[in-house]
Amino acid sequence: MSRPNRMLRETNDEARAVGQDLLRQARFGALGVICPDSGGPMVSRVSVCTDAEGQPIILVSELSLHTRALNDNPTCSLLVGEPGSRGDPLIHPRLTLQCQAEEADKDGIKTIYLSRHPKAALYFDFTDFVIRRLRVTSAHLNGGFGKASFLTPGDLALA
Amino acid sequence: MSRPNRMLRETNDEARAVGQDLLRQARFGALGVICPDSGGPMVSRVSVCTDAEGQPIILVSELSLHTRALNDNPTCSLLVGEPGSRGDPLIHPRLTLQCQAEEADKDGIKTIYLSRHPKAALYFDFTDFVIRRLRVTSAHLNGGFGKASFLTPGDLALA
Repeated sequence: MSRPNRMLRETNDEARAVGQDLLRQARFGALGVICPDSGGPMVSRVSVCTDAEGQPIILVSELSLHTRALNDNPTCSLLVGEPGSRGDPLIHPRLTLQCQAEEADKDGIKTIYLSRHPKAALYFDFTDFVIRRLRVTSAHLNGGFGKASFLTPGDLALA
Repeated sequence: MSRPNRMLRETNDEARAVGQDLLRQARFGALGVICPDSGGPMVSRVSVCTDAEGQPIILVSELSLHTRALNDNPTCSLLVGEPGSRGDPLIHPRLTLQCQAEEADKDGIKTIYLSRHPKAALYFDFTDFVIRRLRVTSAHLNGGFGKASFLTPGDLALA
């Protein structure tokens, strides 16, 4: 069986709405960074919320390898949108973000972050935990088979 | 509040068992590749099973960006182990694998793959879908706060 290459769709309002929902509702994601030791990609779990601009925010420990990697090279990627526990994992929509990590004010985001992640109150104030804003530069929505679209920061309603 | 840097533990049998379980039970994961266009990391969702050696196997379309990326640079990373829908996403154990993608025989893996992903029978035979074995070179287990360990392929019981 072969099929035509029509996986990439023109971006439409449905794709924009799905992408915006996936980003705003994300409680966690898979962060891809360049490993400073190997130079290869490295994926790890991060907790996520979005700030007033809608940009993804992560709280990470400076003792962790991913934070060291971001400090070394801020170009990163964040995958959000999780499959359910049943059925084909690939039918569930997900959003791949390309981002530039930047430092952000920890006190300024505390209320928003803890409203999204109340249990993080246990460690939010640890001095080794820092905030990074993952400023989105582009995005790729996979809304399920045959439903892929590129999205701009504007498509995601980011400032 | 500050705390000592004791996030990385010596690898023990508990860490090996948790890592092995996470890999064998994974139905999907987050694949990190180097994007051939930007040179930055890119994370996407993949369906996963393990082959007779225990190595992770993915079924991907040659029309997709991650497959093009793997063809260009086979060094990649796979995150497995998903949080539940409640509570702190960071308390759930997860495993970051560093891998080298290699071509693998599609017919040879079909029975194993479809036993794990029965709904993939709808597209397994499409000619643009190919199998990649993600041969594990090293791994990093995060078993929850303060429970991080490096694991070798041997620790994961890989041949």
